[in-house]
Amino acid sequence: MDELIEKIKKGELKMYELDDFTKDVNKAAEIRRKYLMEIFNIELSKIGEYSIDLNLTYKKNIENAIGCVQIPLGIAGPLLINGEFAKGNFFVPLATTEGALVASVNRGCSILTSSGGVQAKVIDDKMTRAPLFKVSGMKRGLEIIGWIKEHYEDLKEKFQEGSRHLQLKSIKPWLIGTNLWLRIEAETGDAMGMNMVTIASERMARYIIEHNSDLSLVALSGNLCTDKKPGSINWLLGRGKSVIAEAFIERKILENRLKVTPREIVDVNNRKNILASAFAHAYGLNAQIANIVAAIFLATGQDAGQLTESSMGITYAEETGEGLYLSVYLPSLEVGTVGGGTHLPTQREALRLIGCEGGGEKPGNNAKKLAEVIASTCLAGELSLLSALAKNELAKAHEKLGRAKTK
Amino acid sequence: MDELIEKIKKGELKMYELDDFTKDVNKAAEIRRKYLMEIFNIELSKIGEYSIDLNLTYKKNIENAIGCVQIPLGIAGPLLINGEFAKGNFFVPLATTEGALVASVNRGCSILTSSGGVQAKVIDDKMTRAPLFKVSGMKRGLEIIGWIKEHYEDLKEKFQEGSRHLQLKSIKPWLIGTNLWLRIEAETGDAMGMNMVTIASERMARYIIEHNSDLSLVALSGNLCTDKKPGSINWLLGRGKSVIAEAFIERKILENRLKVTPREIVDVNNRKNILASAFAHAYGLNAQIANIVAAIFLATGQDAGQLTESSMGITYAEETGEGLYLSVYLPSLEVGTVGGGTHLPTQREALRLIGCEGGGEKPGNNAKKLAEVIASTCLAGELSLLSALAKNELAKAHEKLGRAKTK
Amino acid sequence: MDELIEKIKKGELKMYELDDFTKDVNKAAEIRRKYLMEIFNIELSKIGEYSIDLNLTYKKNIENAIGCVQIPLGIAGPLLINGEFAKGNFFVPLATTEGALVASVNRGCSILTSSGGVQAKVIDDKMTRAPLFKVSGMKRGLEIIGWIKEHYEDLKEKFQEGSRHLQLKSIKPWLIGTNLWLRIEAETGDAMGMNMVTIASERMARYIIEHNSDLSLVALSGNLCTDKKPGSINWLLGRGKSVIAEAFIERKILENRLKVTPREIVDVNNRKNILASAFAHAYGLNAQIANIVAAIFLATGQDAGQLTESSMGITYAEETGEGLYLSVYLPSLEVGTVGGGTHLPTQREALRLIGCEGGGEKPGNNAKKLAEVIASTCLAGELSLLSALAKNELAKAHEKLGRAKTK
Amino acid sequence: MDELIEKIKKGELKMYELDDFTKDVNKAAEIRRKYLMEIFNIELSKIGEYSIDLNLTYKKNIENAIGCVQIPLGIAGPLLINGEFAKGNFFVPLATTEGALVASVNRGCSILTSSGGVQAKVIDDKMTRAPLFKVSGMKRGLEIIGWIKEHYEDLKEKFQEGSRHLQLKSIKPWLIGTNLWLRIEAETGDAMGMNMVTIASERMARYIIEHNSDLSLVALSGNLCTDKKPGSINWLLGRGKSVIAEAFIERKILENRLKVTPREIVDVNNRKNILASAFAHAYGLNAQIANIVAAIFLATGQDAGQLTESSMGITYAEETGEGLYLSVYLPSLEVGTVGGGTHLPTQREALRLIGCEGGGEKPGNNAKKLAEVIASTCLAGELSLLSALAKNELAKAHEKLGRAKTK
Repeated sequence: MDELIEKIKKGELKMYELDDFTKDVNKAAEIRRKYLMEIFNIELSKIGEYSIDLNLTYKKNIENAIGCVQIPLGIAGPLLINGEFAKGNFFVPLATTEGALVASVNRGCSILTSSGGVQAKVIDDKMTRAPLFKVSGMKRGLEIIGWIKEHYEDLKEKFQEGSRHLQLKSIKPWLIGTNLWLRIEAETGDAMGMNMVTIASERMARYIIEHNSDLSLVALSGNLCTDKKPGSINWLLGRGKSVIAEAFIERKILENRLKVTPREIVDVNNRKNILASAFAHAYGLNAQIANIVAAIFLATGQDAGQLTESSMGITYAEETGEGLYLSVYLPSLEVGTVGGGTHLPTQREALRLIGCEGGGEKPGNNAKKLAEVIASTCLAGELSLLSALAKNELAKAHEKLGRAKTK
Repeated sequence: MDELIEKIKKGELKMYELDDFTKDVNKAAEIRRKYLMEIFNIELSKIGEYSIDLNLTYKKNIENAIGCVQIPLGIAGPLLINGEFAKGNFFVPLATTEGALVASVNRGCSILTSSGGVQAKVIDDKMTRAPLFKVSGMKRGLEIIGWIKEHYEDLKEKFQEGSRHLQLKSIKPWLIGTNLWLRIEAETGDAMGMNMVTIASERMARYIIEHNSDLSLVALSGNLCTDKKPGSINWLLGRGKSVIAEAFIERKILENRLKVTPREIVDVNNRKNILASAFAHAYGLNAQIANIVAAIFLATGQDAGQLTESSMGITYAEETGEGLYLSVYLPSLEVGTVGGGTHLPTQREALRLIGCEGGGEKPGNNAKKLAEVIASTCLAGELSLLSALAKNELAKAHEKLGRAKTK
Repeated sequence: MDELIEKIKKGELKMYELDDFTKDVNKAAEIRRKYLMEIFNIELSKIGEYSIDLNLTYKKNIENAIGCVQIPLGIAGPLLINGEFAKGNFFVPLATTEGALVASVNRGCSILTSSGGVQAKVIDDKMTRAPLFKVSGMKRGLEIIGWIKEHYEDLKEKFQEGSRHLQLKSIKPWLIGTNLWLRIEAETGDAMGMNMVTIASERMARYIIEHNSDLSLVALSGNLCTDKKPGSINWLLGRGKSVIAEAFIERKILENRLKVTPREIVDVNNRKNILASAFAHAYGLNAQIANIVAAIFLATGQDAGQLTESSMGITYAEETGEGLYLSVYLPSLEVGTVGGGTHLPTQREALRLIGCEGGGEKPGNNAKKLAEVIASTCLAGELSLLSALAKNELAKAHEKLGRAKTK
Repeated sequence: MDELIEKIKKGELKMYELDDFTKDVNKAAEIRRKYLMEIFNIELSKIGEYSIDLNLTYKKNIENAIGCVQIPLGIAGPLLINGEFAKGNFFVPLATTEGALVASVNRGCSILTSSGGVQAKVIDDKMTRAPLFKVSGMKRGLEIIGWIKEHYEDLKEKFQEGSRHLQLKSIKPWLIGTNLWLRIEAETGDAMGMNMVTIASERMARYIIEHNSDLSLVALSGNLCTDKKPGSINWLLGRGKSVIAEAFIERKILENRLKVTPREIVDVNNRKNILASAFAHAYGLNAQIANIVAAIFLATGQDAGQLTESSMGITYAEETGEGLYLSVYLPSLEVGTVGGGTHLPTQREALRLIGCEGGGEKPGNNAKKLAEVIASTCLAGELSLLSALAKNELAKAHEKLGRAKTK
């Protein structure tokens, strides 16, 4: 080992070559750690005390591995979900280091479950990629758009070539100056699908260029996809799963267990989550949806870079005759149960805990189940935090009155 | 243990009570795992094979723990940074499951380091919280705003009470209808500071209400903070660290090692990162900043819920006489080196690797150093992906030409 | 007349009743003026010196008329347009009080015409209205959406009933909580179409409720239309006419007549119009499109309230081998040549000047022609202002150099 | 005259030279009309029947004039306003061609006046211009920002030089890559102030460059101003007048006269104006503010190009013990009572009607009065339209019930 480290020091061997050189990623990681410990004179032992086999990540999940980071995993639940795919009581895995988050969600789960559970449903499903082409101008751009429409079936065939689970749904064009975007939308089974769609989009883009040789591809990802940036295009048109979760909570349950009235929840939601977020021009009319989405993403091996748009969501509250109606809408939840980090041992177990490990009986079912679980858990988080905020107000009022007396 | 599981099954003991009951979070986690394994009849062993002591997370990071999730950790570097606080060659820890990400960043680091490294600097630093008060209307709202200005010094004292590292910087009011927000901005040393500022804001809010008894607090967090939602308020005014990283890359280095010209990079950046993102109305004029921010957040124990706004960023490219000027601007990077998940063993080591474990020599220095490292690494990621996209275009063109010949 | 004024003073007659009472709007206007002059003791004679017959506006354009406001009308041109409907040289009427605007546009027209003129085309055409319904929750909301799809043909028939020029194009649903929006999109011939679509949407909404009696209509205009507010939905999906205008300008012409190079124009456009507007999160990546759209709107009797979204636009500039490529894209230009203020004598003449007075040979042709003229004129305005800004820079640079010498 | 027309036809005289050539703009306009009538063989007589002297517009408002367009002017009122500057009953001039608009506003005025009138106040006042400089990079950019702070008093002096009514309020810098914006904010008395601030900004920009000779000015208007584009920067930070208007309307008045309850108004406002607009990502959480702002802008000679951001506004409604609280907030209302089109005879009379013709007793008072009148009238428009929408719903419900019986 020391010999290899010497070689690295001398520049005769690159650190990233160690995987292939040693034919063992765990070994390579150990050498890298040792090297870093030596040159920086620091201890890095805990990173090395992992329990998953890093060879599983070879050419899949990471390069230049030095070990693993460990993130505490808690559970909230049981949460009763009456979804299309998620049915029954769930204990939801949440990986987080933010104290009180699991407790907060847990409290929401308890109330929702007491109230008959959450209704949840994926209302749209598609992964997107928007290659950006350069055209000579409007005339040619419109011709290409026409050509795309005419050759849609050919393009579909080309796009789906060799991918059983890939289903092209639509191609949406935008033309600005010499820039032509084709936002390609496709279903991708149980995979989140970014890679699948990217590869297929490249195939399609190549085909388009072959038949329209004056075109050139500026970027396979042209940012109207939009991947890993929160924006209106996904907010309005959706990406990944567009999912709704809702519940009706009896007035008594709210008042007895959370010490708030439906009206108080509605008031906080309207002022804080909707009005203030609208004024901040935020892609997020909610209290803490990002917390829950992030914690489940980390637990289940999703792509953390996609938290930006996957965390976009709207919380809506309304007082009804019986109590409170509460719903969340997540337009752009990008999740999968196969591919990416989902196959890693701890992540796989987290998926197993909610019954969506690997591919579904019918392709797509498990990913949709996961999406329903996430949205339902977000609802729990919103209920809990909105109650806490509303109560805080009451507490203050009470305290104020109490103090007033003594003065 | 089986006895306790029985009690849980019977509802005589709550799962979340196990920490206090057993006085050992690891033990409690084991019981919870066993319980879940039994009731769902599944295996959850890998989650239990962690190496950090979960007692460290007690009342700090998680509730209802069942173990840990393990995320592969890779390194990119060396990256030469000439920051105000980050100086020298860095190996940056990236926790991710997205294959090729570390390799991509690594390539960027190599080019940047060859080009003399990255200049980086935190240009603004503040954590914010915006309590939302209900006032009777405009007249009273404006009076309160006036009162706040008059009593700024008192409020500052109240706010900073007992927190050595807390420095109030400003209070920005907005009044819409009966809703009055006070966006409180403060420096928080090496802590990301959300909790610190929340607690201090409550103290300030209480004080304001004590002296203006007709006011009521709708929500301590009024969503003009804005925490965990991407929006214009942080995009324009900043939150956490506002940080810049830039580099000049020689034409030759670009052309020889990345096979692209400065003009090609600029062209892709202008069309994809700026124009397309502007059209998508995205808070992100960049290629993959979210990937890098996410990977370092996970590695170093940051709050993953804050990735939404921390990932907002602008990549700017310009051709110069000598080659390429490239910069990134991250307006709202919320990071700390103490508090949250930063004290956990693996995360701590990741911070140690870049020399910002725990509090800085002067409070705030380590958090700023971390921010500079993140922004610099984002620059590496942008350079690498922009090159890949630009080349892709060239590759296609070449292929097309090649194919044309054979036909 | 004095008698009537007395009655108004005593409250026996309402001012707005005067039209019907006098059966002459001009007379009624005179009485109102007199009344106002008396009670405020002011002179209002100029408002009364109008030359159009206000009876033309009766139950169409205004109530409680007191006369007319006169806005100076200038012309820019000739501007050579090679549109689908606008063909030839145009003198464009601009009603404005902003000095230098007409001159600026005029200069742009001259350059564009010298360069072979402008290509222009309406690429999409639809007016929208989005009634907002209240549903009991997700289940019912999705059922209604399903019902809408199933009954699309019936709804189309109902919608188009009695309106020859109305063509339903699509119904786009969004469901958030108990709120269901149906964004109804339709072609409306030469009319801008807001009223036509509103009336037809009410008919459709009524029909939907008749067949789904648990639904209720919250608002016929549910703000996802979106009328008279600039927002992403029209920016991305279009409203009214989505129109492109572009031109190639020879390098020599630019350099000789505007004293700028293509690169200078491109540089200003990229930095100011695109990057800065993107950072301001503006629905307008341009220099002065609003100026031109406003001036033509006022000249031709369009709805000034719709300037907010009609002025949204993107200016794109690119250096080419021969010189400069410049284009504008207006996604949401809401215009008509019949209805609204277009029939008033002066406005009608302004439309006549550009050959689109009243209905087109084929319904819609004149409105599209007008849209092409507007977009082309915007292009002239952009070229002119971008040049002026770029030159300013040169002037400064020159001055600086000159000064440097003397020091 | 025919002789001149011949010269124009032959290209010996330019149309825009006619003003100087004839020394009479009215004469010049007549010649232009004749020319256009001849070459297009059309009648343009109505445009020529104006009553204002176009010589008033010479080098101020228009070039290449051919006459005037006449827009019907109506009045709504009386509207009782209790503003800081607008006090008493107002008849508000509205220039529009949209039928029912004046009637709708008029109805709102009547209800508001019966309810004790509107409270209104300008809470911020500043015109802005943001020159965009090119710097070599971050280091130099930050130095310049530092230099600006150090030399603020010098810059202020330079900026205000020769303009009695100009008061620099602040300079806000943003640095992205090599782009440095300085958003200059200043009070401009009774003028809307765009020109005043532009000229002064050029003086300041020149001064900055003189003392920092490596800087260059990319564009005097760098689009973070932001002029004539709706965006977050003005939405959050304000431009022109930031103004609030509010009223409390008794339940009885609402129920008797508008046939709606406070709760119905609040419900429509929350769902349509706030939630839907937030989802559309609109800079406008309101029903028809743009209609009213546009109509008063046209009546009083404001810059119609600025309607885009001046129309941004938020309508907030809340049920109170006594009835309804309703408010509007216009963050970016750009108005003046001197300069621009305000001096034209008809526009001047419209200003006179609301008592804000020309400069105020104290500079700025009249412009602020106008702003208060506009915001108050917007409130009337919102109340009226919200009621109409809410009633529509009731009507439908009633009808439905009625029909149900007969079936």
